[in-house]
Amino acid sequence: MHDISSYQKRAEDWFQDLRDKICAEFELIENELTGTNSDKPAGAFERKKWQREGGGGGEMSIMRGRVFEKVGVNISTVHGEFPETMRKDMPHVGDNTHFWASGISLVAHMQSPLVPAVHMNTRMLVLGKGAWVRGGVLNDLPTPKRSSFGFAQAGDLAGEATRSVDGGSVSPKTDHWFGGGADLTPMFPDTKDTADFHAVFKKTCDAYSSDAYDKYKKWCDEYFYLKHRNEPRGVGGIFYDYLNENIEKDFVFTQDVGKAFLDIYPELIRRHMNKPWTKEQREHQLQKRGRYVEFNLLYDRGTRFGLMTGGNTEAILMSLPPEVTWP
Amino acid sequence: MHDISSYQKRAEDWFQDLRDKICAEFELIENELTGTNSDKPAGAFERKKWQREGGGGGEMSIMRGRVFEKVGVNISTVHGEFPETMRKDMPHVGDNTHFWASGISLVAHMQSPLVPAVHMNTRMLVLGKGAWVRGGVLNDLPTPKRSSFGFAQAGDLAGEATRSVDGGSVSPKTDHWFGGGADLTPMFPDTKDTADFHAVFKKTCDAYSSDAYDKYKKWCDEYFYLKHRNEPRGVGGIFYDYLNENIEKDFVFTQDVGKAFLDIYPELIRRHMNKPWTKEQREHQLQKRGRYVEFNLLYDRGTRFGLMTGGNTEAILMSLPPEVTWP
Repeated sequence: MHDISSYQKRAEDWFQDLRDKICAEFELIENELTGTNSDKPAGAFERKKWQREGGGGGEMSIMRGRVFEKVGVNISTVHGEFPETMRKDMPHVGDNTHFWASGISLVAHMQSPLVPAVHMNTRMLVLGKGAWVRGGVLNDLPTPKRSSFGFAQAGDLAGEATRSVDGGSVSPKTDHWFGGGADLTPMFPDTKDTADFHAVFKKTCDAYSSDAYDKYKKWCDEYFYLKHRNEPRGVGGIFYDYLNENIEKDFVFTQDVGKAFLDIYPELIRRHMNKPWTKEQREHQLQKRGRYVEFNLLYDRGTRFGLMTGGNTEAILMSLPPEVTWP
Repeated sequence: MHDISSYQKRAEDWFQDLRDKICAEFELIENELTGTNSDKPAGAFERKKWQREGGGGGEMSIMRGRVFEKVGVNISTVHGEFPETMRKDMPHVGDNTHFWASGISLVAHMQSPLVPAVHMNTRMLVLGKGAWVRGGVLNDLPTPKRSSFGFAQAGDLAGEATRSVDGGSVSPKTDHWFGGGADLTPMFPDTKDTADFHAVFKKTCDAYSSDAYDKYKKWCDEYFYLKHRNEPRGVGGIFYDYLNENIEKDFVFTQDVGKAFLDIYPELIRRHMNKPWTKEQREHQLQKRGRYVEFNLLYDRGTRFGLMTGGNTEAILMSLPPEVTWP
């Protein structure tokens, strides 16, 4: 028997710790700017807590700065029951309609069109009433099956189990799992940036298992794709879900994904943020952001389920770019 | 037996005629401007024809002007079979998977935040293979039933029959119908504008039947509503569908909706277009447009079905505003 409850506590603490580290690093970057906009004041994060009707809540951190045009870093830990309206889509879950979830979700839209936008999210999910009523020891729960559900929370958490599942990754005995990933959206893809971004996550995946990187890279490419445009949202990254091989190993991997993000993304920002850009490059950026909006509102299951099921609209739509054009 | 084919021809001609009238009137307005932006050249429509894989096609008319920041007027006449992927959602249609459709769809986003944005669309639908293979005489077709379908076409046509149907409006003998409507989205609602807009459509509806206005106004309010924001998209108008009481009367009504639009919207533009506006009013407009994007991508069945089923992305997304903010 795994003592899942101790991991719930550790996961929640980790997501908060990662949030603090990311926000501190991003504020450092704001202060380092010497190029365009350096005559403006450096940005700083504003935090706002919210409560979820039905259990738990979260904290949004948002910064509108001179390097980061708009960046949101949300953490949340929620629990409760799947909304009544969603149960009809959950025939296999049966009476096991309770969940607990904790996670971090980040989207950054940058001032400079030469600095890529980015998305990162990791989370831990626990199914069953025991997940929160009795403190998380789940060994006597009914057996949940793979199904679709969403819950009223910030985007990435909301659509958790509604994403496509690749064949072998869900055990019928799943009572908890980890998921997440990170993907890069440059306005002007740069071969070295793309290679370096992927290399960091490959290293992280390789430490977990030999086939993880190929699998999670493919999953990312498939998920972040705009079918109506026949184009990918960006240059990819990794996407994983329903990870429940070994709770210690899975949690370490989830932490490592956050660390990998912190390793590479600030590096990519610093690589480009002080370079001057043209009006044409900015215009291209604003149009490319339109694709980001199209993806999030048309396809992203987290966003759609979150909004449709009474999630925190402000937290969910923090992912939308500050300025966009469809000329 | 109705000679539906003659109405198909008349409807197609009418939508083209209405398009020409609207474009001519909008270009007149462009030339009349004396306020802000009158130092810039007046806009003119650009036209672009497109063919639909599977049958038919359409013509986009788009103007990026000094009064109209971006306005699209699409007409199309398409026919074919419902895509394979959609048939599983159409259990009641059976073998009757052929359709013919013709319509006009218009969305205008204005330079001035004091001039309302607007949407108008009318269409004729015919079900059954005879609708296009044999020229439209449909009396020997299998009986189609109320169901959901969409077809690969510009937004409003695409989602035609996927919208919610109110109880009594679909006869099991439906082999054709008309649908459409118009709704106004002011950035700063003006009591007189709203009243005048509704009055014109009330008059049009009253000429059709005594209960039409209340029914179609309510349908509009229900359809153009952003649940996740708990707010309506605009100040409403009318929305009707599955109209098949009497083909002559229904067609006249559909024409009258177009005429009513042409009666009132240019009037509302002229009422406000020469007034100066502030930076704050413009900022509010750009944010309000974000709600328009949210509605169209999250909820609008025409947009979603059109995009998901391989419709003309350019024509469908012509409805998106030229510049938008989510600050």
